[in-house]
Amino acid sequence: MTTRSILFTTLALNFMCIAFTFDTTPLQDFCVADATNKASCKDPSKVTPNDFSFSGLHLPGNTSNLYGVSVTTVSSTTVPGLNGLGLTFMRADMAPNGFFPPHFHSRATELVVVLEGSMEVGFITSYPQYKYFSKVLNKGDVFVVPVGLVHNVRNVFKGNTVAMVAFNSQNPGITNIPNAVFAAKPAVDTDYLSKAFKLDKKIVDDLKKKF
Amino acid sequence: MTTRSILFTTLALNFMCIAFTFDTTPLQDFCVADATNKASCKDPSKVTPNDFSFSGLHLPGNTSNLYGVSVTTVSSTTVPGLNGLGLTFMRADMAPNGFFPPHFHSRATELVVVLEGSMEVGFITSYPQYKYFSKVLNKGDVFVVPVGLVHNVRNVFKGNTVAMVAFNSQNPGITNIPNAVFAAKPAVDTDYLSKAFKLDKKIVDDLKKKF
Amino acid sequence: MTTRSILFTTLALNFMCIAFTFDTTPLQDFCVADATNKASCKDPSKVTPNDFSFSGLHLPGNTSNLYGVSVTTVSSTTVPGLNGLGLTFMRADMAPNGFFPPHFHSRATELVVVLEGSMEVGFITSYPQYKYFSKVLNKGDVFVVPVGLVHNVRNVFKGNTVAMVAFNSQNPGITNIPNAVFAAKPAVDTDYLSKAFKLDKKIVDDLKKKF
Amino acid sequence: MTTRSILFTTLALNFMCIAFTFDTTPLQDFCVADATNKASCKDPSKVTPNDFSFSGLHLPGNTSNLYGVSVTTVSSTTVPGLNGLGLTFMRADMAPNGFFPPHFHSRATELVVVLEGSMEVGFITSYPQYKYFSKVLNKGDVFVVPVGLVHNVRNVFKGNTVAMVAFNSQNPGITNIPNAVFAAKPAVDTDYLSKAFKLDKKIVDDLKKKF
Amino acid sequence: MTTRSILFTTLALNFMCIAFTFDTTPLQDFCVADATNKASCKDPSKVTPNDFSFSGLHLPGNTSNLYGVSVTTVSSTTVPGLNGLGLTFMRADMAPNGFFPPHFHSRATELVVVLEGSMEVGFITSYPQYKYFSKVLNKGDVFVVPVGLVHNVRNVFKGNTVAMVAFNSQNPGITNIPNAVFAAKPAVDTDYLSKAFKLDKKIVDDLKKKF
Amino acid sequence: MTTRSILFTTLALNFMCIAFTFDTTPLQDFCVADATNKASCKDPSKVTPNDFSFSGLHLPGNTSNLYGVSVTTVSSTTVPGLNGLGLTFMRADMAPNGFFPPHFHSRATELVVVLEGSMEVGFITSYPQYKYFSKVLNKGDVFVVPVGLVHNVRNVFKGNTVAMVAFNSQNPGITNIPNAVFAAKPAVDTDYLSKAFKLDKKIVDDLKKKF
Repeated sequence: MTTRSILFTTLALNFMCIAFTFDTTPLQDFCVADATNKASCKDPSKVTPNDFSFSGLHLPGNTSNLYGVSVTTVSSTTVPGLNGLGLTFMRADMAPNGFFPPHFHSRATELVVVLEGSMEVGFITSYPQYKYFSKVLNKGDVFVVPVGLVHNVRNVFKGNTVAMVAFNSQNPGITNIPNAVFAAKPAVDTDYLSKAFKLDKKIVDDLKKKF
Repeated sequence: MTTRSILFTTLALNFMCIAFTFDTTPLQDFCVADATNKASCKDPSKVTPNDFSFSGLHLPGNTSNLYGVSVTTVSSTTVPGLNGLGLTFMRADMAPNGFFPPHFHSRATELVVVLEGSMEVGFITSYPQYKYFSKVLNKGDVFVVPVGLVHNVRNVFKGNTVAMVAFNSQNPGITNIPNAVFAAKPAVDTDYLSKAFKLDKKIVDDLKKKF
Repeated sequence: MTTRSILFTTLALNFMCIAFTFDTTPLQDFCVADATNKASCKDPSKVTPNDFSFSGLHLPGNTSNLYGVSVTTVSSTTVPGLNGLGLTFMRADMAPNGFFPPHFHSRATELVVVLEGSMEVGFITSYPQYKYFSKVLNKGDVFVVPVGLVHNVRNVFKGNTVAMVAFNSQNPGITNIPNAVFAAKPAVDTDYLSKAFKLDKKIVDDLKKKF
Repeated sequence: MTTRSILFTTLALNFMCIAFTFDTTPLQDFCVADATNKASCKDPSKVTPNDFSFSGLHLPGNTSNLYGVSVTTVSSTTVPGLNGLGLTFMRADMAPNGFFPPHFHSRATELVVVLEGSMEVGFITSYPQYKYFSKVLNKGDVFVVPVGLVHNVRNVFKGNTVAMVAFNSQNPGITNIPNAVFAAKPAVDTDYLSKAFKLDKKIVDDLKKKF
Repeated sequence: MTTRSILFTTLALNFMCIAFTFDTTPLQDFCVADATNKASCKDPSKVTPNDFSFSGLHLPGNTSNLYGVSVTTVSSTTVPGLNGLGLTFMRADMAPNGFFPPHFHSRATELVVVLEGSMEVGFITSYPQYKYFSKVLNKGDVFVVPVGLVHNVRNVFKGNTVAMVAFNSQNPGITNIPNAVFAAKPAVDTDYLSKAFKLDKKIVDDLKKKF
Repeated sequence: MTTRSILFTTLALNFMCIAFTFDTTPLQDFCVADATNKASCKDPSKVTPNDFSFSGLHLPGNTSNLYGVSVTTVSSTTVPGLNGLGLTFMRADMAPNGFFPPHFHSRATELVVVLEGSMEVGFITSYPQYKYFSKVLNKGDVFVVPVGLVHNVRNVFKGNTVAMVAFNSQNPGITNIPNAVFAAKPAVDTDYLSKAFKLDKKIVDDLKKKF
């Protein structure tokens, strides 16, 4: 083990040997988010089936952007009946060469299923340290990214790739690594980033402008 | 309010007015289910990307059965890396006239998205008492069924209907109402079922044989 | 295993071998429900011992109804100090031939103790599929119904039966199966129910009127 | 506010104004405690209704002891099917002048209902500091003691008092204050106890012998 | 086992053999407590780094009081950004002969590290019954007090002792045993306390005045 | 809002307006980790006060490494009595110019208090997107880093800086961003990293060698 790994493993637990899982449940059948009063549930006599539904997940998103990707999200923001129920769902479209930069979700495990095309997806563990578990997924393939781990996603198909994605949280959260590091406002100190990423200060300043 | 509703509303809470949700997380990056020792996680040095993947969700299931339906399930049983991560996923196929009998999942909210065809889905609340929230879903439509509520699902398309379904539990559980009532072993008393369902005893005995 | 059981076991987990339990606690000593502002706790300087008490559980309920039963409930609705503390309590009275139709509580395990008379109580598991665990309880007997399972309850005594019932939730929820299926508003489709319950459409229409 | 109260209120939160509650659920229908292997659930094919039942709660306990009280407990120790389901139940008998010394349960809220006689029960809050909420309960009366608060219980009836008690935990835990303070092994330092309780050292030493 | 221990062990579980732990997470990055509206989070555009910071933990507290101790607390009351994040921190100062009376925290495990001086700290278990785990801590020593257990703390150094203390709850709660027992308002009955603590009524009345 | 921000905000929830927090508790007083059998708690009769203690947190760590920092960790690995209690504690030493690269903890909020020197610490939110909350901390200053957010830490003092750090999890987890991105094994694709970080492939290959 090198100096570096000694240094940073101190927070890592000996691998626990007991499988442990649990569920939690809300206290009511539902609590539909009320657009006019975020502190309360919508009056149940005014709740309708539409509060639990969403349309258009068969439609491709617009991938005309720098990343060549698009996401259409079904969450409590778009489906108020999902409030408090611990689920978010998403359609992802990736144009040829499209990709999602390295990112992580603090609050949800992600399950992805490919409907069309091929994509590469992989996650990096915190312990064991920095092992990369990746796979190329084709049509009908599924992959799981455990909560809180950095993962990479890119289209490896000549055409568009379409995937459905499920998260087990009402608000998974997303931190894109390059943006968080180089595009934070106010900016993170250039010296610090230069040393941390072993990059010239000039390159760091450059990256700050690009992001 | 009739006698009946007075009688059975006593357990129903005044509708709470505060939205409440929360997340929980496992204590490790992952704990892959170990086929040979259910009390422990798989040795992490032997974990591979395949422990987090599944193939074949693009393939139609076999609907040649009494219900004309089929489910292909992605759970910790088939994807050991899902163990402890609080998600189950499923592909459902329904032949013309296919249906799922009234059922409920004790431990998960369900989100369904239609990929092909049209299906009707609806759930019945416990409070307000026995309101039915249903909708016909077409291609690209999504519907949410809150945890623990009885719901009905049937194909209303002339051809096959295909849906993807996400659950926020490692083990949602399923109780099909007709089976639980009429096919339990040992059998539930005929007199009791006759009175509870307001059916002739002869019909109840008949149902017990059918299920 | 028949086609039916293959079809519906896909959501059932291999039986897990590790006992797992946990507790949760509120963040304060108490938060008495405030009748005038559901979004806040009652001003603690105005809280009194009466906020934590209830009287009359020694009194028989009125069982002059179709089911011949009555419940008197101690919950956060009647005892505001119970708010947030995860408990509901109940006295149940059953006249001769009185019964509770098949029902389930989505959010609580139930423990029943018989004070007088004799009752039969039984629950049906979701996995293993549809096993019926039932017992006749006499004076001083206790029975436990795990959370989320359908259960049947009936008086089997020539006189009245009285029981005390504890639930580990502030809002257990109750779905009476016959009512949810046949008395939902708007009504569930007759064709669907006819096929699901293997009953003539005429009988289903009849049941819809009866419930 | 005196010096003392300033000193010890620093850990007390401003009273929060949002009612907050939640439920949790196990991951399986049940996990019956296995007497021979505490790390696993009992083989479900060997589980019987008796695993969920208990008899004798109508029988008075033996109160011939220093406290004049007795408890008969229904827990996962005596009812293995309760394992993981978050409930404990108890019958308490108190002879004339019987009492339970000041104690608290770390892991459960307690709900008590009086079946016979009269008892006084009261709890002391941590915040607001040391307010005493007490009440004399007669037949049919119910009182709630929030989790983690010190409470006092005594018979105030000329005859026996009988109560049923529900806890929302599989293992409520009990710390009797006088025993924890004066009967701990190894013993707590006499000087310290003398100063803390403002008692002569001789009295403290005496108490250590008595308990 | 004596009569006493038989009597009070009925709530104690057979010692469970499976290590079980879990984490929980908030649903957002943060929810800074809003001083003007306790039911809502502070507008995130107005949140500043100061909402997450505190100054002065290097300063000795004023120990000129009856106990010769002082605590400086970092909690969501003083650091609004801590709201919902499950942590409280504290500096404790103890003058020579200073001590904290026996007390417990209902909602948090406590970890103490000594920066200067020497202190004795010990906790008493509820099960096994009333075992005392204590230790004299010197500079750089750490000790852990599990949630909900009565513990004793006193300076055993000739000079001041300084410690840092971490709690894993936003609101640990504190019940000082002598105060809860003898200084509750309204007062607990003297007869009851006399019998429970095996003290003369006169001494109990005296203690009520002292506290 | 630019294309980029539109693209990646879809997972971000409208900022919720209700403060929500909760605690959880273990089911036993303690479950000391057993070195010889990770699936069980240590026999309680063999548990000693040493199982709850640790020594040496007053000693500086060795900062003679590339980062000029050191951490000494008090966790369930080094203090077996911490098992299941939801706390980790740490002493951090930073030599002049020492720093911790950008990293995050998936499972714990972090509270840091400076004992000596001065350090800069800052975290970047996921929503609002990439806001940087940072502060220079001097002796006695405290700062809080919410769970799951990327944060930067560096010594800004001419001498050593020493801090104590508390986490509210038994296993906070740590992902150092530069290592996870550039030192994962097997390596992440250079093309992908080059596009994601807007760096020349040559520089990416170079970084892979450096880390």
